[in-house]
Amino acid sequence: MTPLEYLKKTEKKRMTELFQFLRFPSVSAKSEHKKDMRECAGWLKSHLSAIGFKSRVYPTGGHPVVYAEYTSSKQAPTILYYGHYDVQPPEPLELWKSGPFAPEVREGYIYARGVADDKGQTFCHIKGLEAVLKSTGSLPINVKMLIEGEEEVASENLTAFIRKNRQMLKCEVAVISDTAQFGHEYPAVTFGLRGVAFVEVSVYGPNRDVHSGSFGGAIANPINVLAGMIAQLHDKNGKIAIPGFYKDVKPITKWEKTQFRRLPFNEANYKKALGVPALHGEKGFSTFERAWSRPTCDVNGIKGGYQGEGGKTIVPSVASCKITMRLVPNQNPNDICNKAERYLRKIAPKSVRVQVIKHGGATPVVVPTDGPWLDAAARAIKTGFGKAPVFMKEGGSIPIVADFKKILEINTVLIGFSQHNDNVHSPNERLRLKDFERGCKTGAAIPDEFAKVEV
Amino acid sequence: MTPLEYLKKTEKKRMTELFQFLRFPSVSAKSEHKKDMRECAGWLKSHLSAIGFKSRVYPTGGHPVVYAEYTSSKQAPTILYYGHYDVQPPEPLELWKSGPFAPEVREGYIYARGVADDKGQTFCHIKGLEAVLKSTGSLPINVKMLIEGEEEVASENLTAFIRKNRQMLKCEVAVISDTAQFGHEYPAVTFGLRGVAFVEVSVYGPNRDVHSGSFGGAIANPINVLAGMIAQLHDKNGKIAIPGFYKDVKPITKWEKTQFRRLPFNEANYKKALGVPALHGEKGFSTFERAWSRPTCDVNGIKGGYQGEGGKTIVPSVASCKITMRLVPNQNPNDICNKAERYLRKIAPKSVRVQVIKHGGATPVVVPTDGPWLDAAARAIKTGFGKAPVFMKEGGSIPIVADFKKILEINTVLIGFSQHNDNVHSPNERLRLKDFERGCKTGAAIPDEFAKVEV
Repeated sequence: MTPLEYLKKTEKKRMTELFQFLRFPSVSAKSEHKKDMRECAGWLKSHLSAIGFKSRVYPTGGHPVVYAEYTSSKQAPTILYYGHYDVQPPEPLELWKSGPFAPEVREGYIYARGVADDKGQTFCHIKGLEAVLKSTGSLPINVKMLIEGEEEVASENLTAFIRKNRQMLKCEVAVISDTAQFGHEYPAVTFGLRGVAFVEVSVYGPNRDVHSGSFGGAIANPINVLAGMIAQLHDKNGKIAIPGFYKDVKPITKWEKTQFRRLPFNEANYKKALGVPALHGEKGFSTFERAWSRPTCDVNGIKGGYQGEGGKTIVPSVASCKITMRLVPNQNPNDICNKAERYLRKIAPKSVRVQVIKHGGATPVVVPTDGPWLDAAARAIKTGFGKAPVFMKEGGSIPIVADFKKILEINTVLIGFSQHNDNVHSPNERLRLKDFERGCKTGAAIPDEFAKVEV
Repeated sequence: MTPLEYLKKTEKKRMTELFQFLRFPSVSAKSEHKKDMRECAGWLKSHLSAIGFKSRVYPTGGHPVVYAEYTSSKQAPTILYYGHYDVQPPEPLELWKSGPFAPEVREGYIYARGVADDKGQTFCHIKGLEAVLKSTGSLPINVKMLIEGEEEVASENLTAFIRKNRQMLKCEVAVISDTAQFGHEYPAVTFGLRGVAFVEVSVYGPNRDVHSGSFGGAIANPINVLAGMIAQLHDKNGKIAIPGFYKDVKPITKWEKTQFRRLPFNEANYKKALGVPALHGEKGFSTFERAWSRPTCDVNGIKGGYQGEGGKTIVPSVASCKITMRLVPNQNPNDICNKAERYLRKIAPKSVRVQVIKHGGATPVVVPTDGPWLDAAARAIKTGFGKAPVFMKEGGSIPIVADFKKILEINTVLIGFSQHNDNVHSPNERLRLKDFERGCKTGAAIPDEFAKVEV
């Protein structure tokens, strides 16, 4: 029996098991679900043990980590699978068509909280590995599996866990399925994530809001000043004007440009979906390049003075804003925070006081595109989906990937099985049955393909 | 008996009457005081009648107007006195040392809500006119007195009243005492007020807040865009960059510059009082010129995106701000609103949608400084205070003054008897006894001095 035949034969049982997994209301954000979290971790451990993994539940300062291992041979590569069994709170409940923890199949979709993010996607790998193990009697790779319970609450205890268990987690590469495909019928390998650097800036003027009739024109207005400073963050070509900002930025490779050009892009639809009259960004780059491979500087929020109805004629005492900069290899969040602070202080006039709070951020990551892991992942996807994947990047950050790079010194291959419109973090979260099946098949193809990589 | 001897003789009675006036809790903002308002107006009418005025209470859509007249002769000039008998709410009550409507003299000050703003100051004129009338048997001027009850609630019904009673209110000049002196021992004539023009600007980007990781860099950020637009409101010399903004601005006269230079100004104290590290404004102008005689463009409030604690990585859907421009003669609020809108739309990039709400505003006013009324007022102040006044302007707007100019086609002389630190609109509002007495003396000197003006 081949792994694919095993998957076909066990289809019904597999769905029953997935539904068991989905029924745990494993909401990490709410203390009332602490017991559910523990029970879900326990179920997962038992399930992995039953398949043939050596598995264990590790307590942490918060919700427990489930860890499982399978040892094949010293010669075989070791793959670290990462996933999370915790889910977002399901509220607002009244918008769900079926209960968030009462999984149901409707019109080709499985509906349940966590089915896409991330229980269902993680389960694809578990079931894929099981298929190989049960049909062939062994795995051609060493497997380490780390399934945490705090991804939706910022993985508070995971970095410490990885640091503490560096030796145990030693591996050649990590695989994560916690992202989406590029689109329907566009399975994808995501080979890079932007990082982020966060600063908060406050500009202080008079020691209280003062009458703009009496003092307007004679003292600096903190809002006008802050606006002027924000305006100086970009030049007229959309380039970021902070000195040294691009110093460590690696140019986009020819290979990468080719991959992005291959992706379908309909500007009219893109604009329509966002409701913007025109696109806007750094001169000389395409939209995918701007969103995935170039750094940015966005103000996420601003406030100052009177914001209520009508008018209030004041020169406000303070204006402040939150700025995040998306980073690309090899920019460093702390270095960028320092450069931003230096520049903001330099361009501020003497007539105000400036406060800059630097929050650091997440390191950008990229998987070497000339390495063998991406090729292996692509072959596995082709087996699973019957179609070669596209290569894309993701503009956001997944901090765990940077931790793997920093602490374990490994790259991560991101293979998303869900879709962008699967209502992740929203009511009626779903995963296409077809995507779940193809995910399991991809999961079953990974061991062979990754085993081919010479390490 | 001279008017000044009359004032001296009636000092005690005058204080008793002022206290009667101050005891009415004539808070126009609160409907529970509707009866108090009516009683206060009635008391005022009777008081003016008893002195020798023909007086009447006019109902309006809101609180009544008290109107009084004295006819001297056809040859005499007609002076319109304006004041208001309504007061600000007294809260927070616990901060008052004596009851807001239980007037009390302590350490040379009369304490009561409304004693400075504006019952006490209005009473100076009433008592001054009484002194002339009772000591000499007549007044050398025609008097029209308009004392409204809605100044603290934006004079909602007064413009209509003035428009309707244009003929009745016909006069040569208006006198208002509802401002402050320049400082202790610096009695002042205020010969100009800035106007104001108000616009609200909103910049719309994506149709919802979107993830700044996924879309940042590829679409315009409404906060960054709005900041850029605000930054372009001024040039590097602090001049306003809106095309045509200065077209109607009259240059500051040599006489005006001289008056301002005569005023004491301590930059260190000014900065310290406001808590600013340095002053800031239009190049080539002094602080008084910037605050009183030059137009401004201040953002009074701004908001957009996430303003709570911590961070939220979004490109916000919208950012908006409130902008007021202080105007000087001969700028027109509607014209300036139109120019601002045109400019803001012009400098906005195509990647956003811009909404501009134009609220219009108040017309700037100035009393001709080469006219005879200022001289007459200065002579009266010299008699009352024993010291010549300084000539100053005020950076804020008093809309009624613009109404007088527009509807009655007259100028207004502003003579303030109170001080900037008399706690107007705050607990423990007060008026120096000495200032009240000198105000009454000035009030008694005005008829003779204004009668000398040839019309």
